[in-house]
Amino acid sequence: MKVRRFTLSDASLERSPGQEGDIFVGNLVDERHGGPITIGYGRYGPGQSLAETMAVDDVMIVLEGRLSVETAYGTLAAGPGDIVHMPKGEKVTIRTQEEGALTAYVTYPHWREAHA
Amino acid sequence: MKVRRFTLSDASLERSPGQEGDIFVGNLVDERHGGPITIGYGRYGPGQSLAETMAVDDVMIVLEGRLSVETAYGTLAAGPGDIVHMPKGEKVTIRTQEEGALTAYVTYPHWREAHA
Repeated sequence: MKVRRFTLSDASLERSPGQEGDIFVGNLVDERHGGPITIGYGRYGPGQSLAETMAVDDVMIVLEGRLSVETAYGTLAAGPGDIVHMPKGEKVTIRTQEEGALTAYVTYPHWREAHA
Repeated sequence: MKVRRFTLSDASLERSPGQEGDIFVGNLVDERHGGPITIGYGRYGPGQSLAETMAVDDVMIVLEGRLSVETAYGTLAAGPGDIVHMPKGEKVTIRTQEEGALTAYVTYPHWREAHA
């Protein structure tokens, strides 16, 4: 696999599986490319929530806006430049309020295969 | 492992191994925590260069500033919000010019063990 550089415009954002809200994800690198990790961008509209039990280790880097992550141990707030690590097996609810958020994500292993 | 949120101030930045320049890295999650991936922040001063043959799959998200990545196939320029994927086995030279750069990184598997 070659070294590649991605920008948001390289991603084809699609509605995140299992929800009908304004939350979209676009993989840039995944199981189709033969490597171990999935890379992509995520976009959350304002006032959204997404509850999930993590099927993979997921690292979310906030690029724009703000979001919160509710866990069994409390709620974590994240803004631009912050990193949220959601290990496999953890239950989370990701929420946005007025602003919405743009994120980059990296998962190990591939989240789409783990969801299927 | 719990869900965690990190900001730049959580990282203890140390000089990147194998170079004497103004390039610093700080792991937030790594082999000490029992999971599969390493997460951290990197800071590149202006006018730096770092040549490396990738020992692991490394995803670098540019948070501030600008950098370029020279590869066998050409040079990739990246700024805020851009993602660079450097697969295991690839040779790269990461360079900054006037600005320097702040990055977040995620590696699979752990880069420090692969370097050792």
